[in-house]
Amino acid sequence: MDTQKALDDLHSCLGQRLSRSKSDLDLHGASESYFPPSPPDAVAYPETTAEVAQIIAICARHRVPVVGWGTGTSLEGQSQAFSGGVVVDFSRMNRILDVAQADMVARVQPGVTREALNEELRATGLFFPVDPGANAALGGMAATRASGTTAVRYGTMRDNVLALEVVTARGEVIRTGTAARKSSAGYDLTGLFVGSEGTLGLITELTLRLYGQPEAISAAVCAFETVADAVETVIDTIQCGVPMARIELMDEASVRAVNAWSRMNLPEKPHLLLEFHGSDSGVREQAESFGAIAADHHGSGFDWATRPEARSALWTMRHNAYYAILASRPGARAIVTDICVPISRLAEAIEETRADLASAGVAGPILGHVGDGNFHAVLLVDADDKAEIARAKAASDRMVERALRLGGTATGEHGIGVGKLGYMEREHGQGWAMMGAIKAALDPDNIMNPGKMVPPRN
Amino acid sequence: MDTQKALDDLHSCLGQRLSRSKSDLDLHGASESYFPPSPPDAVAYPETTAEVAQIIAICARHRVPVVGWGTGTSLEGQSQAFSGGVVVDFSRMNRILDVAQADMVARVQPGVTREALNEELRATGLFFPVDPGANAALGGMAATRASGTTAVRYGTMRDNVLALEVVTARGEVIRTGTAARKSSAGYDLTGLFVGSEGTLGLITELTLRLYGQPEAISAAVCAFETVADAVETVIDTIQCGVPMARIELMDEASVRAVNAWSRMNLPEKPHLLLEFHGSDSGVREQAESFGAIAADHHGSGFDWATRPEARSALWTMRHNAYYAILASRPGARAIVTDICVPISRLAEAIEETRADLASAGVAGPILGHVGDGNFHAVLLVDADDKAEIARAKAASDRMVERALRLGGTATGEHGIGVGKLGYMEREHGQGWAMMGAIKAALDPDNIMNPGKMVPPRN
Repeated sequence: MDTQKALDDLHSCLGQRLSRSKSDLDLHGASESYFPPSPPDAVAYPETTAEVAQIIAICARHRVPVVGWGTGTSLEGQSQAFSGGVVVDFSRMNRILDVAQADMVARVQPGVTREALNEELRATGLFFPVDPGANAALGGMAATRASGTTAVRYGTMRDNVLALEVVTARGEVIRTGTAARKSSAGYDLTGLFVGSEGTLGLITELTLRLYGQPEAISAAVCAFETVADAVETVIDTIQCGVPMARIELMDEASVRAVNAWSRMNLPEKPHLLLEFHGSDSGVREQAESFGAIAADHHGSGFDWATRPEARSALWTMRHNAYYAILASRPGARAIVTDICVPISRLAEAIEETRADLASAGVAGPILGHVGDGNFHAVLLVDADDKAEIARAKAASDRMVERALRLGGTATGEHGIGVGKLGYMEREHGQGWAMMGAIKAALDPDNIMNPGKMVPPRN
Repeated sequence: MDTQKALDDLHSCLGQRLSRSKSDLDLHGASESYFPPSPPDAVAYPETTAEVAQIIAICARHRVPVVGWGTGTSLEGQSQAFSGGVVVDFSRMNRILDVAQADMVARVQPGVTREALNEELRATGLFFPVDPGANAALGGMAATRASGTTAVRYGTMRDNVLALEVVTARGEVIRTGTAARKSSAGYDLTGLFVGSEGTLGLITELTLRLYGQPEAISAAVCAFETVADAVETVIDTIQCGVPMARIELMDEASVRAVNAWSRMNLPEKPHLLLEFHGSDSGVREQAESFGAIAADHHGSGFDWATRPEARSALWTMRHNAYYAILASRPGARAIVTDICVPISRLAEAIEETRADLASAGVAGPILGHVGDGNFHAVLLVDADDKAEIARAKAASDRMVERALRLGGTATGEHGIGVGKLGYMEREHGQGWAMMGAIKAALDPDNIMNPGKMVPPRN
């Protein structure tokens, strides 16, 4: 590795858009999670795919790590340069290149955020549904295989990225997939890069599926006496085939936190937050079906005829829940868990987790995308208290073991980064070695986000 | 390669279930397409994953090719052993291992056919939607990334395989994915194996998504004066968001062929074949929306209130269309094209293809899954007439060039095999070399279905 030579070459290529200012390095060394700061050697701000290719080619020549950066909102340290090197910040590649209305497809640069895209789409009658909460960049969302509140209806980034332009670890530009709805033409490279967290190459363009804005949308909340009642309601709703657009759980502790943060006054009980999409009659039918199921499980306060402003306030509250929970214990950092299990096992996964956290003395408000079987316990820790961190990590380990035992996965949507690396072998067995073989084949010098995702090289 | 030693070892392991009878070799050397017969050296009939692992381990030791076989219904020579070696016939691995009704998931062995699975599911209220026409084995459907008539609503095998058990090229057993609905835990190995056509390993178990049987189903046909009218109807229907379960095109020549084969008497005009799934009111709403759009494009004879028997006759006719078209010219073989384009370009793709085939003097009835932008011209050739085959292949080449120019793909659902190998570089550019690198990493001795999918090794 010859970092100084790489930085000299990068400076010749990018000029002022290669930054080594302390503030920039600190900003790009930080994370929203509990990981220690990891300032990179430099931050590059490319404006074109050709510049990204030059950056990677230079870094490859000098064996310098390259780490992609969208909005820095990943939760497992994915965009932190723990081995040093160059962070490639895509904020200047933020153009919407094309919206093909007839094909319901958009072509965007990786730095476009999901809110920016939807703002641009507003007049077209179309929208991009994937919504991880944070106003993340679409390139980062693809790299993380993000999902969020709407995946129960519209799927994850896996389902909604049709094609990519990627710069490989050699600095070559390739295109994966097409704008056609389906293809059987070879290995699914698009699917391989979605979720690869910048370890195989950097995404420089995305072709995304869009959907028609629903004729009618209705949002609602419903309170329950117990988490078990709420979860049983979710399971019944999904099994009855009600096409929920969102169905989110918050336990009492989460409700308390969002009440304080967002100045709401929800009863301090477990809640489901709901959204229905469809025709006027369809929305009515869905809401009535849900209402009947909720009533069977002692749900209360369900009212689906909300106004748009109330809907917006509801989802803003939900999107800020992570920050609300963090703020519920001043100075705390979070170890965020993200297990996902088959829906039939959701109730026991949540109940066992609650009991376990209580007996371990770990504060962990629970919320999640329960229609997918996915939920988070946000484990609050004092970053300086090693014993507390160890206790929380042990609880997180037990959650993962529980998820795997119940037929699920260690992470539904947050990805691996470094935070979940320790779970990969347990989840995938020999499949993890296969991931390592793919990485070694496509990034033989291990410059793309090294130290993440795959087994360490010998 | 030491084939004899491999066969001896395989015989010790499988006994009678290693077949070298001429009839077996001939059967497994044949295809439904125009490729020459290619009898393998032996056919293995494993009954367990452990036996598949032994077979591959033995073949790996002796560098003998291994080719998977489901029902032999692939159309591009995928399951033919052009380099000799052992065909692994999965017909004895045909058990449905588990149907988790609450999770709407089934675990099956690769030799289970889609009809066998749906027969088993009938009493559960669930079904598996992917329907390529042939009663193919689910392992082969996954390996081909198959889709068919229902993909417009339910997606392809890419969307409906949640997890796999795979035996790798080293004879190791790995599991990819889980029964949870989503995961961000590492590279999408499930997605990599779906569509890999046995070139990276053999699928020994699949976890599949199931769907609730619709409350109401209605099928219909609608005749049009011109193919253009029919295609414009499709485009408008999709763009209006009508959630069609099937929307299939047959041109005049296809209608003539199925009339003769299935003793139907459809008017000899272009037709759309339709199916609506939903609640009673939903089906009515969809059918009325479609009817209004079709009327705008001079559609005639549309009647959506069909009885189940008529529906069954309709789709049997459609499923037999390939054989009907083959029979329309006695003794002919087919070069089947399979392009897929963005829906906005579908009309020009079909019109240009029709004009091109007419001027080239190639008989090629057109039919397809037009809701996905996917269609087939079944190019009829005399297998002994080299000039005619050359003319048809040239027309097929031009179709692919057209598809790529219009932003589409060389194959929507039939896959690559050997028939579409010549299009890979054109479609993927440097991405094809990346596929080769993945293959070399996971199958370094090139024993898994060699000569298919990736660039030839030097």
